[in-house]
This record gives sequence, structure tokens and C-alpha cells, in this order.
Amino acid sequence: MSVDGLPMVVPAPGLPARVRIHEVGARDGLQNEKTAVPTAVKAEFIRRLAGAGLTTIEATSFVHPKWVPQLADADELFPLVSDLPGAALPVLVPNRRGLDRALALGAERVAVFASATESFAKANLNRTLDESLAVFEPVVRQAKDQGVHVRGYVSMCFGDPWEGPVPPHQVARVCTALRDMGCDELSLGDTIGVATAGQVRELLGLLNERGVPTEVIGVHFHDTYGQALANTLAALQHGVTTVDASAGGLGGCPYAKSATGNLATEDLVWMLRGLGIETGVDLGRLTATSVWMAEQLGRPSPSRTVRALSHKDQ
Amino acid sequence: MSVDGLPMVVPAPGLPARVRIHEVGARDGLQNEKTAVPTAVKAEFIRRLAGAGLTTIEATSFVHPKWVPQLADADELFPLVSDLPGAALPVLVPNRRGLDRALALGAERVAVFASATESFAKANLNRTLDESLAVFEPVVRQAKDQGVHVRGYVSMCFGDPWEGPVPPHQVARVCTALRDMGCDELSLGDTIGVATAGQVRELLGLLNERGVPTEVIGVHFHDTYGQALANTLAALQHGVTTVDASAGGLGGCPYAKSATGNLATEDLVWMLRGLGIETGVDLGRLTATSVWMAEQLGRPSPSRTVRALSHKDQ
Repeated sequence: MSVDGLPMVVPAPGLPARVRIHEVGARDGLQNEKTAVPTAVKAEFIRRLAGAGLTTIEATSFVHPKWVPQLADADELFPLVSDLPGAALPVLVPNRRGLDRALALGAERVAVFASATESFAKANLNRTLDESLAVFEPVVRQAKDQGVHVRGYVSMCFGDPWEGPVPPHQVARVCTALRDMGCDELSLGDTIGVATAGQVRELLGLLNERGVPTEVIGVHFHDTYGQALANTLAALQHGVTTVDASAGGLGGCPYAKSATGNLATEDLVWMLRGLGIETGVDLGRLTATSVWMAEQLGRPSPSRTVRALSHKDQ
Repeated sequence: MSVDGLPMVVPAPGLPARVRIHEVGARDGLQNEKTAVPTAVKAEFIRRLAGAGLTTIEATSFVHPKWVPQLADADELFPLVSDLPGAALPVLVPNRRGLDRALALGAERVAVFASATESFAKANLNRTLDESLAVFEPVVRQAKDQGVHVRGYVSMCFGDPWEGPVPPHQVARVCTALRDMGCDELSLGDTIGVATAGQVRELLGLLNERGVPTEVIGVHFHDTYGQALANTLAALQHGVTTVDASAGGLGGCPYAKSATGNLATEDLVWMLRGLGIETGVDLGRLTATSVWMAEQLGRPSPSRTVRALSHKDQ
């Protein structure tokens, strides 16, 4: 620890100079809360995240309120934050209807949420894998026609609660299909947090072989088995420069009541800063934001860095 | 996840084929408990750890009971477990008196606990760094004369709560002093958990330059800022084959009330097994042991793997 609550900086060779953090706390985190967070609190959360230097903040999801009531206020929330300077605010769109709502509000970045496995496509989207891709195709095409940036999430890239290990070539097939549709970037999700570093390396290598360049790949690790940051390091060593994370580790995991789901942005920033990798994030302001959000939610942040730094401040 | 609660195995190049886990839960973990755990429970814990396949289990500390009352039963505990087949049981000895007690009970492996910084030597041992090394010298010499294996812990190798960042050459000086005395192995401790992967790589490289081979180096990471497993991966990539960890993540951290101190053995085993690195540990039996120990202590394990696997079993 340095006296100012920041790690000592010692770069390591072979790592990128800069990483873009795709902050998912406001969407992926808050959609897992039992009760919906008030719209004004969400807006303030997003403003504070931008104030901490995060430049890509996934704001909400234009999914039908029946499926995700926690984010039913997307149409009210988005206009409250859409003019934030310096921050891109992607939103999730499940289908044409969601895309229309997002475009009507001026969204410039959207994301679709695909699955690498049949079981999760069935459970989450009630479709076969190919049917779900067929649904996304016109959504992606319409978005691209409007000049909108499209991210394609691919969930269950490393393991699936029903199917077990997921073959990398199956993930690659979904990834190339999303790229062929026009997705500008992909986010490889370890939705149940089971991956280890060799799997990460193997999948990234295979994607490169199949013509998906590392520059368009983001990684999205969950910390269910404590592997998220080690897997992120493996991805950085492969050249990945986009990492998804959730402020304060927001976002529950259905498989472990008290464990976190998402990699905590603060834990990620601690590592990146220690490695001398630029993120533009002010760790102190980010931690203060997560402490504030934890107060709104009435329970402590699961981020270890947030706990360590906020305890230190007392 | 595979259906049997184990990670998919995908090796990565440049990593060791086998890692020896130095299990510290019974000593480093339990010495941080507010109230002493009954001797019979400690013995059963050590037996179960051995039954799970751990081959190096640090059993206790022959420190004066005034300083660590939690381990005041060392003389009663050690004979209860010292005949365990297949497991080496190192014990901590702070001085000649401690060594004499350990030798009288037939201990074949001991450890001394040095500091890389003046501040921690002062706070923990009430001596200057050189004075503390002078105390250890006859202890190490006597142990070696008796044919006993000696481990030298070096704490605060990467950061110190009073001094901030710790210069690697200062750590190297303490390490080479301990080696010169006769220590068979070293354990590099990130006692406050602040290190990141570049620091780990830098220190290991410097130690090699100063004539300390990687084979005698163990790493001991704390998870205060969530960095322990990523740092372990960096150490493995450097060739380190001895990793300290604590079953269930036992061992509090003074800087974060609810965060863990030690790297959880289960989280480590999950990564190593996923990477195809042999440890000899049965993850299911180890998790069951940590769940049992958590029941004895009356609170859940902070290990993410323990939480995920034990929830899955319900």
C-alpha cells in the first residue's frame, strides 16, 4: 500500500498500455437487486461513475418490464443521463421493440445478449441457439443502419450449469455469427464464473484463428470461484484491452447467495493501476461511489478493495 | 462448471506441472480467531486437511502464549497429529525456547518469521531488522544441526502499512540473509495484500539475480485487495512451485473487518486443477473440511469456491 491508498506501480512486459473498462454495475448489477432502485438513485449512480472517470457505462436495459422489473424505468432513466459529457452509455436491447425504444431516446450504443449454449438460450430466451441468433440479426442490422455501435454479449462461454464445459468451437460459432451480423464488439461472458486461465487463453486463440481480432473482444468474468481477476490477467496477456466490471462488485450470483457475481471494478482498477495500465479511473472517487451505492442498497460492497479502502478511511 | 463440481482442465504453457500447497489455515488462520479453538477441533481439522490430500500442513506455533493465546496449546496439539501419514507438519518457532519445545516433540520442520521492513520488525518483534535476524541465526543453525528443515517467512515483501511500498532490494537483503543462515526455503509474504503482478515478477527476478533460486521460494498472498490469485498466477508463470494458502480462507485481515486475509486453498486448487497442475488435493474433501470448520467457528467461509460448491450441494 502506498500512503495514498493506491498500489505501487510496477509494469510487466507484454501487457496493453491502456484498458477500457466497460462498467456494467448500473445494468448487470442493479438488474439483480431484489427490489428496484429508484430512478433518481440510478441516475446519480451513473453520474458518479462518470465523475470517477469511467468512459463506458452500461446504463440500463430496454427489456420488457415483465422480465426485468428492476429496469422497468429505462425510458425515464436514459434521458436523465444521456447528456453526460465524456461517457458512452450503451444499453441492452433484447429485440426490435427494445431497439426502437432505445433509438427513440437517442441511444448511440446498444448491446444484444446471446448465449453460447442451447441450454441457456432455452432457459433465458426460450429459443434454440439459432432461433435466438435469427432474432438478433435484424436488430443488429437496423442498429448498424442507424450508425449505432453494437456490442454482442455471449454468455456461458466457458461453462454452463446444465451442459458443463462448453466447447470453444461452439463459442466461436456464435461469436463469428454475431460478427457477421455486424456486431462491432463482443463480450465473452463466464456467466457462472468457472473458467480458469488456460480456458481463457484457448478461447481467445481460437477466436483469432477464426478471424475475430483481439481488438473487438471484451472479457466479462464472474468471481463465483474467485477466478475473475486471474482470468483477466490471462486475457490482458493475450492482448485484450476491454474488460467488463461492476462498481463495488454489484450483481448477485444465483449459485452462491453471499458470493459476488461480477468482477468488482475497484479490484480490477487496483491491478491495472499497479501494472501501470491506464484506465482514466480515479480509484478514490470510484470507491466513494460504491460506498455511497452500498448505503443506498443497505448492505456492504463485496469488493475487497472497496472494503479495504473504506475501512482505512474510517 | 463440470457436473462433478470441478473446473474444466485446459493447461497453459510455461507453468509448472506440479505445485506444493503449504497449508497455513491451522496456524496462520486459527491464530487470528478471537477465541481459541479447542485442541481436539484443531487436531481433527489437521487430520481432515491431510485426508483431503494436503501434504504440508503448518500445524501450530511455539510462540509464548502471552503473544498468541490462540495457539497456547501447541505442546498438547502437536503430539495428537505428529504421526499423521503422508503429511509434513511444520511449526512456527519464534526463538530458541520455541525451537527447543518443537524439537522435544519431534518436529521435523520449523519456520521462522522475519520481516522485510524495519517498521514491522519493530511492531511485531520489537527489534530492528538486523537485531531480529541476529535472533533467528542461532535458531536456524541449531535446527539445521538437528537435521530439521527450516522455512523462513519474510513478511511485508511488497508493502508495509507504515512505510508504504517496500523496495525489492530490501526484501532481497533479508532473503539472502535467511538463506545464508541455512533456511531451506523462503515464503514471500504480501502481508497486507497490496501487491500486483508486476511487483511479484520484479521481486522474483531480483531474487534469482541475487542467487536465490526459484525452487526455494514460496509465495504467500493475502486477498485484501482481491489480488491474491492473480499474483499467484504471475508467480507460477515465473516458475514458482510452492504456494501458501489457507483452507476456507481462514485468517482475518486487520485492515478489512469482513474481507479475508489469506488466499483460500479451495480457490487456489480450482485454478490449479483447471490449469492441469497437480496438487494431490481432493477439492470435494477439502471443501467439506472447510464447511465443517466454518460450523465449528460459527460463521461462513469467505472462500468463494467453498461458498459456490457448498451451496451447489444443498
